[in-house]
Amino acid sequence: MTAVPPAAGAVAHARTAHPLEVMFRPTSIAVVGASAQPGKAGHAMVQALRHFPGTLHPVNPRGGHVLGHPVLTTLRESSGVDLAVLVVPPEAVPAALEDARDAGVRAAVVCAGGFAESGPDGARIQERVARVAQEAGIRLLGPNTSGFMNPVDRTTANFMPAVADLPAGSVSVVAQSGGVNLALAFMLARAGVGLRLGAGLGNAIDVDFPELLDLLADDEATTAVGLHVEGVTDGPALVAALRRTTARKPVVAFKVGRSDVSEFARSHTGAMTGSYEVTRAALQQAGAVVVDSLEELVAALAALREVRLPAAERIGVGLLTGQAGPGLVVTDALGARGIDLPPLADATQQRIAELLPPLTFQRNPVDTGRPSPTFGDVLGAVASDPAIDVVGVYALDEPGALDPVAALGPAAGRVLFATGGPPDALAARRLGLDAAGIPMLAGPGDLATALAAVVTDARLRAVVDVPPVAATRTLGRTLDEHEAKTLVEAYGLRTPARRVADDRAQAHAALADLGRGGGRVVVKVLDADVLHKSDVGGVHVGVSDAAALDRALDAIDAIPRAGHPRRYLLEQLAAPGAELIVGAVRDPVFGPVVLLGLGGVAAELGGAAALRLAPLSEARAREMVAALPPTVLHGFRGTPAVDVEALAEVLRAVGDLISDHGDVAEVDLNPVRITAEGPVVLDALVVVAPPRGDTRP
Amino acid sequence: MTAVPPAAGAVAHARTAHPLEVMFRPTSIAVVGASAQPGKAGHAMVQALRHFPGTLHPVNPRGGHVLGHPVLTTLRESSGVDLAVLVVPPEAVPAALEDARDAGVRAAVVCAGGFAESGPDGARIQERVARVAQEAGIRLLGPNTSGFMNPVDRTTANFMPAVADLPAGSVSVVAQSGGVNLALAFMLARAGVGLRLGAGLGNAIDVDFPELLDLLADDEATTAVGLHVEGVTDGPALVAALRRTTARKPVVAFKVGRSDVSEFARSHTGAMTGSYEVTRAALQQAGAVVVDSLEELVAALAALREVRLPAAERIGVGLLTGQAGPGLVVTDALGARGIDLPPLADATQQRIAELLPPLTFQRNPVDTGRPSPTFGDVLGAVASDPAIDVVGVYALDEPGALDPVAALGPAAGRVLFATGGPPDALAARRLGLDAAGIPMLAGPGDLATALAAVVTDARLRAVVDVPPVAATRTLGRTLDEHEAKTLVEAYGLRTPARRVADDRAQAHAALADLGRGGGRVVVKVLDADVLHKSDVGGVHVGVSDAAALDRALDAIDAIPRAGHPRRYLLEQLAAPGAELIVGAVRDPVFGPVVLLGLGGVAAELGGAAALRLAPLSEARAREMVAALPPTVLHGFRGTPAVDVEALAEVLRAVGDLISDHGDVAEVDLNPVRITAEGPVVLDALVVVAPPRGDTRP
Repeated sequence: MTAVPPAAGAVAHARTAHPLEVMFRPTSIAVVGASAQPGKAGHAMVQALRHFPGTLHPVNPRGGHVLGHPVLTTLRESSGVDLAVLVVPPEAVPAALEDARDAGVRAAVVCAGGFAESGPDGARIQERVARVAQEAGIRLLGPNTSGFMNPVDRTTANFMPAVADLPAGSVSVVAQSGGVNLALAFMLARAGVGLRLGAGLGNAIDVDFPELLDLLADDEATTAVGLHVEGVTDGPALVAALRRTTARKPVVAFKVGRSDVSEFARSHTGAMTGSYEVTRAALQQAGAVVVDSLEELVAALAALREVRLPAAERIGVGLLTGQAGPGLVVTDALGARGIDLPPLADATQQRIAELLPPLTFQRNPVDTGRPSPTFGDVLGAVASDPAIDVVGVYALDEPGALDPVAALGPAAGRVLFATGGPPDALAARRLGLDAAGIPMLAGPGDLATALAAVVTDARLRAVVDVPPVAATRTLGRTLDEHEAKTLVEAYGLRTPARRVADDRAQAHAALADLGRGGGRVVVKVLDADVLHKSDVGGVHVGVSDAAALDRALDAIDAIPRAGHPRRYLLEQLAAPGAELIVGAVRDPVFGPVVLLGLGGVAAELGGAAALRLAPLSEARAREMVAALPPTVLHGFRGTPAVDVEALAEVLRAVGDLISDHGDVAEVDLNPVRITAEGPVVLDALVVVAPPRGDTRP
Repeated sequence: MTAVPPAAGAVAHARTAHPLEVMFRPTSIAVVGASAQPGKAGHAMVQALRHFPGTLHPVNPRGGHVLGHPVLTTLRESSGVDLAVLVVPPEAVPAALEDARDAGVRAAVVCAGGFAESGPDGARIQERVARVAQEAGIRLLGPNTSGFMNPVDRTTANFMPAVADLPAGSVSVVAQSGGVNLALAFMLARAGVGLRLGAGLGNAIDVDFPELLDLLADDEATTAVGLHVEGVTDGPALVAALRRTTARKPVVAFKVGRSDVSEFARSHTGAMTGSYEVTRAALQQAGAVVVDSLEELVAALAALREVRLPAAERIGVGLLTGQAGPGLVVTDALGARGIDLPPLADATQQRIAELLPPLTFQRNPVDTGRPSPTFGDVLGAVASDPAIDVVGVYALDEPGALDPVAALGPAAGRVLFATGGPPDALAARRLGLDAAGIPMLAGPGDLATALAAVVTDARLRAVVDVPPVAATRTLGRTLDEHEAKTLVEAYGLRTPARRVADDRAQAHAALADLGRGGGRVVVKVLDADVLHKSDVGGVHVGVSDAAALDRALDAIDAIPRAGHPRRYLLEQLAAPGAELIVGAVRDPVFGPVVLLGLGGVAAELGGAAALRLAPLSEARAREMVAALPPTVLHGFRGTPAVDVEALAEVLRAVGDLISDHGDVAEVDLNPVRITAEGPVVLDALVVVAPPRGDTRP
């Protein structure tokens, strides 16, 4: 058997060879643990590589033949092997890697499970494997992965033999789980989407998301990237790699962990699932379209591999239907995702009225009734409307009524098509549509998902972030409320006028001062160790005379276990308004994160909060404010509307504060009141992390 | 051409012939407006009926032949025709129906659009069509529908010729839209689900949801029913028919209208979309599994046509996986739907530990690692666990590793299977699984959707409703707060002690009485015409002395445009607690509906509310209470926990009140405070509808 040069269109070109090219586009592969026995993983792996155009060496001490290939009894007998696929038990992996090193092998896939995901014993073997691979200079995928598939180069190293016949295409997938990598590859194939590269990371002791993203960003044969994420190890590295990738091509990500699946997840690839909300926010901020299921991932990739719009905050979607009912379903699903269809210009509507019978709806969506020969002209009119950036088309497959390639072809690159009909007819349609660069989706829901993905991809790139900053300061200890407010004032935030009182006499003097003219004040305990002041009787609102002040001070003095000597904070009452929570935390994976949420009961009820990585650009902060519910944003029942710029500045300040101070674990401004004069910080907490470990509960 | 008797397994048996049997299982069909010209709808309809086993008469004044059938120039020439399919313009429909009557035709499908959905002219034609059909005794499907498909009896009367080859099966669909009926039929076929009957209602001037549901409830060949609902005309009739149907077989419903699509919807089938939330609530209460997309509808039907569990409030789901990653995705998706996987019994875990290698997760989900010959035994162990009612299985298609029919067959009826692999291999698998009664889903998301549907179907039937009651009383006019509270007290609800004051002197006497012992009171304007009392200065909390009372009365007297003479309501302050909204409305489509939601800001933010049709059974009312967020249900930050039975009684009382009084449009108890002594109604509004029309905004 002689070496066959890999096919064209490879992961990397020789002149810019990526370090992982040798893994995903090897000229020679050894399967260590190859087996002649059908059903064994070591047999399936050789079967899966049956279309590999290079040299294939089964390796097994027993020798013999596997599927016609002579078996090497040891990897040491080989020469010129680029990639060793190890289908051996965990405890045999270190020795196999040493053999590989001696044979000059440069990359390995380790399929076995039983490493860190299985407990301390496995973790020890995993550490040894990592060390041996690193010392040997062998790049390693896994362990605990099913492998990878590169159908473009007919290099399908995975233990499911059917991968050898996966259709080649331009979508690449990086899945944390080898099983999901396989599942996704077949789901994509079912949707008519070919694969360029699919890699399962497994325990990812070497090759991980960031490096693969960089590989795929450079890979001209990849037009869209899908990610399956269970947990992230190095948040900033992932974000940076994603930013580089999404600048060049679309990325769609599915994050596991909406519900609490941490126990099962740990047993699976050893990954902690991390904060679902923070991870989603980080992925989106880095430009990835985040979806809620693998099914949505497939529909989004089917569209984005062909259709990517220029970055823009507003994207106008047109919808053209051959049948009104499915069109209504698409319109509804888009609306539920916050995507409304803009009305078409008068000129467009006039043009359409000339093309269609008067009984149809022509404002957007445009319903053609049963498709007629004017369908392509109607599409042209919709697509050329100044408000429209991308057009979704739904029409059942009616060969006599509509030729979709002819009708949609002129709008290719800006049009998505969904249809229904018998499988054979649709398979034939798909060939033509593929050639024309028009994505074909399987139904109304997939079309809505795909349109939303195209819109989101373009919108995400329209908001630019500022680069992360290195923290240059520390606070040393958690601040009391007065100190915390003094700090946030230094970042430009507004607080009510206040006085610190070290004893009762000072408190009465402060009341006289702040309460001039009959104003009422708030009296609080001032103690960094009392976190939930209200719950322990540490906050007294509306104090206006000496007797009431004494009652308040009595109550504060009665708080058990508070620090000594007891101190008090007196503040003027702020003007009325809705209350929000502005906060920041240092996420253990992604670093500083700013949060904006609803205050009061709504927060207790898990009211929706917006999260973004800090520091925030002006546009990013405005985007967070815009995510508030309309009732809050525009005011309700007499509460003032939000001053968007002013609140955005509050968010930026909090993001800067936590970014600047390396030891701040949490900033909690709760509430920030939206007064007619702008946002005012009514309470402030700045928590410094303990010297070691993570402060998150 | 001679008449061929219809095939077996028909919609209705002769001995219990349903009035619509003649439509969906005719022995002879005439296609009026048949055309010899390919591409025309009247040609496509004849093509679509190419496998019809009975007599087919194309009808066209031009005569000639269509696809080999001799054309009748008028329907009057025919005899023995059961069904006339009219593919003629709207204005030609009345005359065609008269011809049909004269020829003894008993059922018609009217395909043309241009009726009520298009405006007043169309509405007039539609009225005439309805009158002619009724006078002629002709049952009518449409107008504005694509038709129906009955693949079991090879009667596929639809203008898309490909319907003739749709696979026959046991799922029936009633779609409001003819286009969706077609789209769904092909989506079901793609998922390997055969169709028993698919009917598109269109404008539904005669045949509508309730009658078709009754037909399908009786049809032994139908094992699951899917509904596509845009708007509902007669809510109680739909609910009653659904209850009859869901008692016998599962129904899955998709309701359009999550977002505002009313304008387009009206132009489509003329249907108002109605309240999305009330319609969903009504469908669920009548036992239908409500899903969010057509894709989910397909997955749910794929499962429920084979697997239906006995009614039970708690359903235990087991999950068994051949690959951990997809299993984690399924677990996560189930968790996001509120379905947790109960831990398996110790004995089950011991049994599984004997069957699987120690590295796998064995608590539920059960991960087998790569499937081995013990897979079937592991499934048996999970399925026989006392906590498990239904088992989901995910495994990639690996012929050497797992034979799913052999492994899963013994658990048929309680097991759903999802897989991934090459299309040809899966098609072969499906044949075996179909024969074994095991649903095969296309991926992890569909498996989660399908499991959730099976769980929901069983849970919905576990809560029994009381029958609707006829209203026997009226109030005559909207009540003021005192009258409203007196009325709700008569239904057993608690309110704070109160006094009505017709003048200031009475108000001071009331304060002296209610405020005995230093208690503070609430002073309110008492006027049925002042709806938002707080917003206009009509509510004064915490009044404890005469001066404060006078200030409050001054403010109330200053309210502009309030009724004369000014009256006041004084009440004792209630104990503290969380505040809820309990209400009832008379929905124009479904009638009395009870609502439970969060009070205060959360309500303004659109906080989740539970809706149910009144009157409420005890179990139904408890179900509403259980839908409250846990923080409210169990109390938070010192607020008392909800007394479930007591709050359920409040809900039942409000439901009884609106059910009893035929002229009450709305009951609004806002807030109901959850005190340590139980729920107390702090404000009450009972609004009587104007004599005519609908009070909904």
